[in-house]
Amino acid sequence: MSRRNQNENPIFDKKQIKVELLTFMYGTLLVRLTKDIKDINELNTKIELIGYDIGKRLVDDLIDDIQRVDHSDQNKLMEKLICQLAQYYLGIIGNYNQVGENEFHLKFNQNPISLYVELPEYLEGLCYSNIICGIMRGMLEITGFEVKCELIKDKMKGDDINDIKISLVKYIEERFIDDEE
Amino acid sequence: MSRRNQNENPIFDKKQIKVELLTFMYGTLLVRLTKDIKDINELNTKIELIGYDIGKRLVDDLIDDIQRVDHSDQNKLMEKLICQLAQYYLGIIGNYNQVGENEFHLKFNQNPISLYVELPEYLEGLCYSNIICGIMRGMLEITGFEVKCELIKDKMKGDDINDIKISLVKYIEERFIDDEE
Repeated sequence: MSRRNQNENPIFDKKQIKVELLTFMYGTLLVRLTKDIKDINELNTKIELIGYDIGKRLVDDLIDDIQRVDHSDQNKLMEKLICQLAQYYLGIIGNYNQVGENEFHLKFNQNPISLYVELPEYLEGLCYSNIICGIMRGMLEITGFEVKCELIKDKMKGDDINDIKISLVKYIEERFIDDEE
Repeated sequence: MSRRNQNENPIFDKKQIKVELLTFMYGTLLVRLTKDIKDINELNTKIELIGYDIGKRLVDDLIDDIQRVDHSDQNKLMEKLICQLAQYYLGIIGNYNQVGENEFHLKFNQNPISLYVELPEYLEGLCYSNIICGIMRGMLEITGFEVKCELIKDKMKGDDINDIKISLVKYIEERFIDDEE
């Protein structure tokens, strides 16, 4: 699969798709996965990995833009990226908190992929939204931040809000060194 | 959904779900399916069926609205529905032609689910976009029209345009009879 010229797709850059289409597509994917992978932990890991792969591809046209922004304050840049990536690519409108030097939280009410979803009892241990963690991890890695993401509060499990804890592992500085220097 | 003000100096300019997220999600689903189903014909049928199920769920909040519109000219209603459903739910901007009494064509250039996709040779016979046919069939059925949908031109296969042939099987009239009459 290769990436074509963006200009060939002007219509979709301006149009929204119905988020439900994504929701149902993800639901279908999960049904397939639960048939193939019976171990819940393995399934949760797989979901996160699928998200990670999608996240990396999702933003790979963004590298040039990221190279041009100010990298002197990495915390500020990461804050900006967390909110903007979540909103622009996932449609997640969230609040951002930093807790300690390397710990960030993205809290949000509406989760685009879990609309209308209720888990059956036998899938109680399924981290349905782990794909969001994976996507965020993939997107942040491409934009220069190696992170771990964990959904520590989940409205699907009865929590009052969704809360993704994002821990900075390292800033991948070399990616943004100017080759000509 | 509570919407915050955009941060100053945003890297991204719009609030939307990127259609690429759907594209990649569908790509992931197809990769799973090709692992499970080796026969291409069976795979094409399965993809259409998945679309059909999604299509039915996608518009099931639309029944009340459809009951209120004018059903006296079924051709006109179907024309309106084909274009509007395709655009609103799938992000497909298309042209509509009627050919004969029960044959309709939806022609469009940009296919949201096949962006950036190139099929490997061994999947030559795969109708990658059959899910769109299924979704259209499911949506039209819920809105009162039993149809068959077939992608007779496909840009992925070298055609100059995408063309879905929609054949009306029957108008499901009883769905819209007023119970109180």
